Amino acid sequence: MQMGTNLPKVGSYNRAVVLEAIQVSDGISRVQIAERAGLTAQTVSVIVRRLLEEGLVFEDGSLPSSGGKPRTILRVDPTAGHAVGIHFDPGEISYVLADLAGQPVARLRTDVRPGLAPGEVIRQMAVTARRMLGEAGVPDGKVLGIGLACPGPLDADGAMHFPPRLTGWDHVPIKRLLEEHTGFPVTLDNDAAAAAIGERWAGLARATPSFAYLYLGTGIGGGLFLDNQIYRGRSLNAGEFGHITVVPDGPECYCGNRGCVEAVCCPSAIEATVRSRLAEGARSTLTGAADSAPGLARTAGDMPDGDAQGAPAGGSVDHSAICAAAAAGDPLAREVIGEVAARLADAAVSIVNMLDIDLLVIGGPAMREVAGFYRQVIADAVATRPLARRLHTARVEVSPLAADAAAIGAASLVFHATYAPRLGALLTS
Amino acid sequence: MQMGTNLPKVGSYNRAVVLEAIQVSDGISRVQIAERAGLTAQTVSVIVRRLLEEGLVFEDGSLPSSGGKPRTILRVDPTAGHAVGIHFDPGEISYVLADLAGQPVARLRTDVRPGLAPGEVIRQMAVTARRMLGEAGVPDGKVLGIGLACPGPLDADGAMHFPPRLTGWDHVPIKRLLEEHTGFPVTLDNDAAAAAIGERWAGLARATPSFAYLYLGTGIGGGLFLDNQIYRGRSLNAGEFGHITVVPDGPECYCGNRGCVEAVCCPSAIEATVRSRLAEGARSTLTGAADSAPGLARTAGDMPDGDAQGAPAGGSVDHSAICAAAAAGDPLAREVIGEVAARLADAAVSIVNMLDIDLLVIGGPAMREVAGFYRQVIADAVATRPLARRLHTARVEVSPLAADAAAIGAASLVFHATYAPRLGALLTS
Repeated sequence: MQMGTNLPKVGSYNRAVVLEAIQVSDGISRVQIAERAGLTAQTVSVIVRRLLEEGLVFEDGSLPSSGGKPRTILRVDPTAGHAVGIHFDPGEISYVLADLAGQPVARLRTDVRPGLAPGEVIRQMAVTARRMLGEAGVPDGKVLGIGLACPGPLDADGAMHFPPRLTGWDHVPIKRLLEEHTGFPVTLDNDAAAAAIGERWAGLARATPSFAYLYLGTGIGGGLFLDNQIYRGRSLNAGEFGHITVVPDGPECYCGNRGCVEAVCCPSAIEATVRSRLAEGARSTLTGAADSAPGLARTAGDMPDGDAQGAPAGGSVDHSAICAAAAAGDPLAREVIGEVAARLADAAVSIVNMLDIDLLVIGGPAMREVAGFYRQVIADAVATRPLARRLHTARVEVSPLAADAAAIGAASLVFHATYAPRLGALLTS
Repeated sequence: MQMGTNLPKVGSYNRAVVLEAIQVSDGISRVQIAERAGLTAQTVSVIVRRLLEEGLVFEDGSLPSSGGKPRTILRVDPTAGHAVGIHFDPGEISYVLADLAGQPVARLRTDVRPGLAPGEVIRQMAVTARRMLGEAGVPDGKVLGIGLACPGPLDADGAMHFPPRLTGWDHVPIKRLLEEHTGFPVTLDNDAAAAAIGERWAGLARATPSFAYLYLGTGIGGGLFLDNQIYRGRSLNAGEFGHITVVPDGPECYCGNRGCVEAVCCPSAIEATVRSRLAEGARSTLTGAADSAPGLARTAGDMPDGDAQGAPAGGSVDHSAICAAAAAGDPLAREVIGEVAARLADAAVSIVNMLDIDLLVIGGPAMREVAGFYRQVIADAVATRPLARRLHTARVEVSPLAADAAAIGAASLVFHATYAPRLGALLTS
């Protein structure tokens, strides 16, 4: 049932609306805030005075106004608070120390040693986060918290449940353990939702009411903002775009479904497809296409930083090599990447038909050299195939945050949880 | 950007929360409303006094309470207001006169004469709605308005745009024309969204925060409630579940996409599949299965009320006959209906993976005898395939409103627009 509201909640909600208006702008005046947020000049003035006193925003010169006196420009003070964003991927852990504007001031990556116990991995996360803060000279009083982006599914208490590709991690209360080890509050979300929140706080979608984020990493996931609010679903597991069925009765997915986007489009699936075509009929096609097969193998060997962890032993054709080869014109790699793009486009059209959004952001570490190609195929589909395209076309953009999207997003989790105007928080409970 | 709020908006929002709490309950006390809506006893008391004065609710006896004095039970007065719901389908127009509780007090159906000009069809709608109100003796003062459910896409001004299966109906301002002809305010939505609102106001989903409605009619559509709010999308065209791609590079859909749910699961697609299998290889299979093919043709002839309008001339195998034959055990009909159910289940799993809802309602006039079978196949898939199924399983239910879902939903559009607590209305603009 819908909950009611009351006056104290209105006050803190309007405060968040004003702060968000300042954060998403490139400098904004009190008058502009009042106009855009539908608040009275007096309400805005009272809230801004308090934000100035707290040091969250500052006055940064003034702009000439159309009428009388110049208008003072307000900006969020990036140094008013910091957060550490941690992206826990099965293969590696990425850390970002971000300021309140969502800009990274330090970055770090560590490998995950296979077989290390969850408690020990979490302890190392805490040590690394503490070290980053120390090296950057950020005192504890300026740390708003730690944001953690993990593979889902996650429950409401901050525990991981049956995460794919991670054995021994079922029912691990990672949020509580990291809080105990660091002494800071931890905000937890899955990697794709974190990337979406990062895009909203500091990226492409700062002023976009409704958008979806299609996240391509080791797995494929997503995040949703609908009508200016993050949409999480009833068990906090909405936005699993990787498990939209795109090939009926297609290849098995670890999730228990078949023909999922992830089962046909994730890096390990792309590697498997290329390998099987090289081993079977496609070998002859490749022979016809001159040097492409040997070229592919060579490229793979030249790229030791590729994410080959997911590839079965003995496979020299890894995802990073395939993307590089596709970009360089190799016919087999282009064929496979083209098929993957077509299935991603099918999923994107379904997302647009279901959610009628303004913007689809694609991003994540698995984009690599083919990001622009994926964007083009998806944008063409989204412009020509959804039912309501003549009334409204969704834009398709590549996240500029790329491989760091989830870690920057993780830091933004903290800012968003602390400052974003959440309608849910407006309601009593 | 998120909008702010103010005190007058809080008052009318809380009033709607209280009225909704009474409507979705089977009798509720002031104390229970305060608990469930998170409002103070005094706030609830003031709002209820006003609702009693306006005659929208009434006191209906009392219940013993656990502690002291018995608690007075409140109910919505069904006679306090009425609405006419009109479902405009390419084949026929259904009318329902509903009371404030969403219960139909009169029903009517008329055919749509092919080739009739839009203006004339709308004029006939107005005459019929007026006649229903006259025959039921509902005075104009008790009419809250007319709800109209149309094929989409619709724009924000209430005009139809490129509706499928209706020629001559592009850019028709149907909302304005029907208001002019009836003198009542008209609330317009697409048929599937209307069915979802009917389910929320008076059906299965009265107390369900997040649900999706998969609507099977001449076409296939959907409606969404997320976090207790209808979700319409940026151009009011969210929930187009019929255009989720379920067969990559599958049959062409009128929408411009390929392999859509609608292109493989709607009545005319089912008819085409059966017809082509009878004409081709399947003929021999059917011969082996004794009388099923002739039986199918006979059944079609026996059911003059079937929705055969969409079938090409000369086709004796219509959708109603196929559903009846499948229910009776005919192997070809079962095979085709089984394939359709599997694709609907794929779409349902994608919906659940994307939106993490509590409930999926299936309904609409094309359910027929196979409703229970569709429900079972979809429920099995939704219980075993979504990624987060171990944390949270969505229920799957058949709407009890069946063929009248869109017309009852259309009437509910009026009640919902008038009385539902909409978070959007809480925000300034």
